Amino acid sequence: MTTTVAATSVLTEIDDTARIATITLNRPEKRNALSLALMTELIEVLREIGARKDVSVVILAGAGPAFSAGHDLAEMTGRSVEDYREIFDRCCDLMEMVQSIPQPVIARVQGIATAAGCQLAATCDLVVAEEGARFGTPGVKIGLFCSTPMVAISRVIGQKRAMQMLLTGVPIDAPTAADWGLVNEVVPVEELEARTRELALQIASASSVVTGIGKEAFYAQISRDQGAAYDYAKTVMTMNALAADAQEGICAFLEKRQPTWSDR
Amino acid sequence: MTTTVAATSVLTEIDDTARIATITLNRPEKRNALSLALMTELIEVLREIGARKDVSVVILAGAGPAFSAGHDLAEMTGRSVEDYREIFDRCCDLMEMVQSIPQPVIARVQGIATAAGCQLAATCDLVVAEEGARFGTPGVKIGLFCSTPMVAISRVIGQKRAMQMLLTGVPIDAPTAADWGLVNEVVPVEELEARTRELALQIASASSVVTGIGKEAFYAQISRDQGAAYDYAKTVMTMNALAADAQEGICAFLEKRQPTWSDR
Amino acid sequence: MTTTVAATSVLTEIDDTARIATITLNRPEKRNALSLALMTELIEVLREIGARKDVSVVILAGAGPAFSAGHDLAEMTGRSVEDYREIFDRCCDLMEMVQSIPQPVIARVQGIATAAGCQLAATCDLVVAEEGARFGTPGVKIGLFCSTPMVAISRVIGQKRAMQMLLTGVPIDAPTAADWGLVNEVVPVEELEARTRELALQIASASSVVTGIGKEAFYAQISRDQGAAYDYAKTVMTMNALAADAQEGICAFLEKRQPTWSDR
Repeated sequence: MTTTVAATSVLTEIDDTARIATITLNRPEKRNALSLALMTELIEVLREIGARKDVSVVILAGAGPAFSAGHDLAEMTGRSVEDYREIFDRCCDLMEMVQSIPQPVIARVQGIATAAGCQLAATCDLVVAEEGARFGTPGVKIGLFCSTPMVAISRVIGQKRAMQMLLTGVPIDAPTAADWGLVNEVVPVEELEARTRELALQIASASSVVTGIGKEAFYAQISRDQGAAYDYAKTVMTMNALAADAQEGICAFLEKRQPTWSDR
Repeated sequence: MTTTVAATSVLTEIDDTARIATITLNRPEKRNALSLALMTELIEVLREIGARKDVSVVILAGAGPAFSAGHDLAEMTGRSVEDYREIFDRCCDLMEMVQSIPQPVIARVQGIATAAGCQLAATCDLVVAEEGARFGTPGVKIGLFCSTPMVAISRVIGQKRAMQMLLTGVPIDAPTAADWGLVNEVVPVEELEARTRELALQIASASSVVTGIGKEAFYAQISRDQGAAYDYAKTVMTMNALAADAQEGICAFLEKRQPTWSDR
Repeated sequence: MTTTVAATSVLTEIDDTARIATITLNRPEKRNALSLALMTELIEVLREIGARKDVSVVILAGAGPAFSAGHDLAEMTGRSVEDYREIFDRCCDLMEMVQSIPQPVIARVQGIATAAGCQLAATCDLVVAEEGARFGTPGVKIGLFCSTPMVAISRVIGQKRAMQMLLTGVPIDAPTAADWGLVNEVVPVEELEARTRELALQIASASSVVTGIGKEAFYAQISRDQGAAYDYAKTVMTMNALAADAQEGICAFLEKRQPTWSDR
């Protein structure tokens, strides 16, 4: 059964059978600019989905020709320091929320993903893009350096390439983004939706308890030094090994049968 | 002279003339699964070789069609928390040992290197793989997310690509592993042994005192922030410059002659 | 107007109109070896340019057939511990200075960039290289492991590839360096100067106040963990948004006109 949750700037569709939630940024006329209202709504939607045991994977998409053009510039002129602080606080909360919900989040990118829109894609666990997609950090051209996007982007594509994007403001195309490790897969535009769903289904075939353990562990270990990361990860492995789904999964493998996960 | 050290699940062969030790995981019927016994033995062998002044380089290989399929699943069902803790402690000790011995360790990979087997390859200083080799983290499929392998892998191939391997469990082929920086060289299977030995000989032509200084410094600096890394590395450089082999090496270079290292 | 500042081992040319400073290592007969005198001079020149409001971008080039062959080996034999310490302290000061001046620094590389010369290129914000350029860390061959170069290089090209360069001493060619993320662009040698200038002009078309904010933020955030990086970066974004050049840039964009930066 597919249910659609009504909202102003974000649409949420939950496919119960497939265990996939699709969240669509829905301001196509504004190229899905991340207004304060949209970010607030998106954070809430992610929080709600994060608490659901019947959703295994989230697809984050954009309505219309663009994934997202970044912050809403109409909200960026003549404001007070408190206003700007609120926008960037909310933006950072959003990025943190994407990575802190247990479900893997796949960005499905068509057209442009620029500035905070590029950051949002870079923040998702996986990215599928159509051949014509472009990724950029053009802030430098309008006097507002993409300093928060660079936190996400420089951790994904490396220093020199991040610097090039940030200092020139010139976008990269989808094949380049894949070559640099920002995008996992590039597909023809007519296959974008189907291929993203196929990838989501593949991940949803695993135990959501286990992908949740893994996703949390990934971000917890990535910025620790290696020794501390191992100390942490080996405790995660031990606890995971004791979990019902691991015992079932290993037995099923040894017995050459399909496992039955606890979340089904 | 080549000496062979007898052991149960790990074979060690030391070529005195070439100054190369080849350690072979020797449970081919189990695709060199990293049982507790094998890991314990491998740690001991590495410790002994690490203390030898007559070995310059270590090649880590697997007997049979696979490099290593990871942990021994027969040891992973119905155990106590203490048992699991012991397995993952031992596994982390092994990875630490590979990087803490002074000799560079080259993984020579044929067939599959999966889960902790992929982690072991990713932990070696260099990796040579044959064209048909595959690298994967399939734990998610059996309910046991590859959380300890991800510590090594996410530090080598970047976040998005690591997430893709971890969340889908789909292995990557050798050319992809080379493209992503997990593998240094891909060669036809019939050239794997010869090319790995050639690389080992090339490294063994340097002073083992100096490669030991460099390897230790590499892992000591890599997880520090840049400023702290430089503070540390410049002390290493100063001490290295004072060492006999540096003085000999620089003089030999300026005098256009071959250097004679202190370890020969 | 173009002014040339006379110096012994470093030439500085400032193009006021283009807002570009070109600093040229000028010991071509020594393949621009980084002697203590040259490093001291280069640090001073960078400090002076860093303080100038009329320079937007720095090009760092080498006179003659090579970019730089690294430390001056003639200064590396038979010295005291204090002498070596001074050389490596100065070298680290130089690398820090390149990244701490507000102007983006583009390395323009022809021929070899080896050891500390490779480190210097890797430390610049961007690198343009001619097709025949080669990058290497050959120290291991002369008994002096490239431990300080590895701090810069291992942060740019990844662990396995850095280890390969460091342990074998074999240089990589320019296309490989681009593939690994050490070089941003590879061009035919006859286009090197023109293309580097074109890139510099592109960056100089932005507000130098804004590129200065961005460059400082980049290096301040890169070695923090992600949470701390965001805490820092969102404050930078807020302050940047309040700056005159951001308000002008955003208004110009919304009004579809060219912005006028405060530094012109």
